[in-house]
Amino acid sequence: MVKKLYGLIETGGTKFVLAIASSHKKILAEKHIPTISPEETLEQSIAWMASQSARIGRIDAIGISSFGPIQVDKTSPDWGNMLETPKPGWGGARIVEPFRKAFSVPIGLDTDVNAAAMAEGRWGAGRNQRTVVYITVGTGIGGGAVIEGRALHGLSHPEMGHMRVTRHPEDRDFPGVCPFHRDCLEGLAAGPAIIARWGANLSNLDENHISHDIISFYVAQMCTTLQSVMEPGRIILGGGVMQTPCIIERIRSWASKLQNDYFQGKPDQVIVSPDLKPYSGVLGALVLAEDALHLCHRN
Amino acid sequence: MVKKLYGLIETGGTKFVLAIASSHKKILAEKHIPTISPEETLEQSIAWMASQSARIGRIDAIGISSFGPIQVDKTSPDWGNMLETPKPGWGGARIVEPFRKAFSVPIGLDTDVNAAAMAEGRWGAGRNQRTVVYITVGTGIGGGAVIEGRALHGLSHPEMGHMRVTRHPEDRDFPGVCPFHRDCLEGLAAGPAIIARWGANLSNLDENHISHDIISFYVAQMCTTLQSVMEPGRIILGGGVMQTPCIIERIRSWASKLQNDYFQGKPDQVIVSPDLKPYSGVLGALVLAEDALHLCHRN
Repeated sequence: MVKKLYGLIETGGTKFVLAIASSHKKILAEKHIPTISPEETLEQSIAWMASQSARIGRIDAIGISSFGPIQVDKTSPDWGNMLETPKPGWGGARIVEPFRKAFSVPIGLDTDVNAAAMAEGRWGAGRNQRTVVYITVGTGIGGGAVIEGRALHGLSHPEMGHMRVTRHPEDRDFPGVCPFHRDCLEGLAAGPAIIARWGANLSNLDENHISHDIISFYVAQMCTTLQSVMEPGRIILGGGVMQTPCIIERIRSWASKLQNDYFQGKPDQVIVSPDLKPYSGVLGALVLAEDALHLCHRN
Repeated sequence: MVKKLYGLIETGGTKFVLAIASSHKKILAEKHIPTISPEETLEQSIAWMASQSARIGRIDAIGISSFGPIQVDKTSPDWGNMLETPKPGWGGARIVEPFRKAFSVPIGLDTDVNAAAMAEGRWGAGRNQRTVVYITVGTGIGGGAVIEGRALHGLSHPEMGHMRVTRHPEDRDFPGVCPFHRDCLEGLAAGPAIIARWGANLSNLDENHISHDIISFYVAQMCTTLQSVMEPGRIILGGGVMQTPCIIERIRSWASKLQNDYFQGKPDQVIVSPDLKPYSGVLGALVLAEDALHLCHRN
């Protein structure tokens, strides 16, 4: 079998991560560039990828793991374009099209969280599990699910951050910061909600500070809701807030109390950290690239 | 193509519904028998099915849509057996085995709600949707999901009834009746919780009684949580409590307020009643029988 080469792009609100890989263990080149306007950032990305391809070899497929909201429905005429977004200049931006023009190879696209869930499911913390959920708790809260190797898509991609949660007994007065729902999960437990209440990141607050218990309670509640809805084999918690020391243990402990032994999955086994960080995004793009190539060869 | 004949069983806590069908539009015979002990009820079911088969023709496959909890994992040695259940005599009962012995044909099995979701997705209110959720709100609350034609299974089948919900402002004091979680969704909104608070079924309470608003609020919250997690094209609400006049309209109205236009799916289109009732259970068994036969011919 001839070795394939894949061009990988993880688009983010602050930076693009670019890479060339031949497998999940062989990342042959990597580059980070700041996210400016769509025109500039995409042009720079394509220039870098073309130069690497000239050096390393012909790219067989491309995978794009993107921040959202992005149109991931292949049957839609605006597939590959950003949807409405508060990020200036990016609403409607064509993300896939410039790569297609430049490289004429199969291109796979999904949200960053779906892609991370795919990668963790294939090579990381979700290996050998039928159903895997990946959640990032950072500036926002977002999630993706992989069921029997395929990313879950409904009317659009799932987002998971805006579910309602019951209040922690010592957090009844904070109104929440979600512009849509005030005190949904994201409005209570993402980075900005932490800063709004306590003026610091969770990692910078003393480990005995009530904030740790409150945030763990909300994330644990999300985990038990996910168990109720889909009983995933693994719920993988990534993102900045989840870097806080001991947070996973606190979340497991709250989840055990909340579910009271009702679900099949035990929190100690089900609730885990990502295996592939900091590469879950780029390796997510690799899954998308591999699958795009495979699908193309089958047709 | 030779017409196939299917033997259908919908097992329930109070009755078994049996049928012979050649398609979802042709139910050729039907029989209800009360649920007594596993031995008696299964023996009667098999006897009826054998007598109908002698009259109508040879059965090609069987579908069983079952109350739970039941082992639906085909790789498990106790596939087809009831798991621990409070229903006396039914814990560990072999549901599939007696049918296999009697008929030697392919047998499909799933939970009643997964089967109903499959049937509604194939022929009913969920037609042409990528992701369909079926929820029953009755003595308990249970749900199943179908994604691209396949029932969702995680570590076990999803149940959906035990997610947490925030309290309706006029329902803060009721402790809830769930033996596991007190005030989870089922503990607040299923039939027994309604009786416990107001001493009557929802349909027997005046339409201006606060109970209607409270129950609609909780069910609507479940719907928006499901949208957050999987953005289903349809959320189909069945079960006794959902027979209450105007309840669907009230749920849609609460869901609109709660989601504040955030999700892709609009409550008026997404939240619907079943199309196939009272046959969603039996037709669910038909989907399972058809799929079991199809799978068997492919191997």
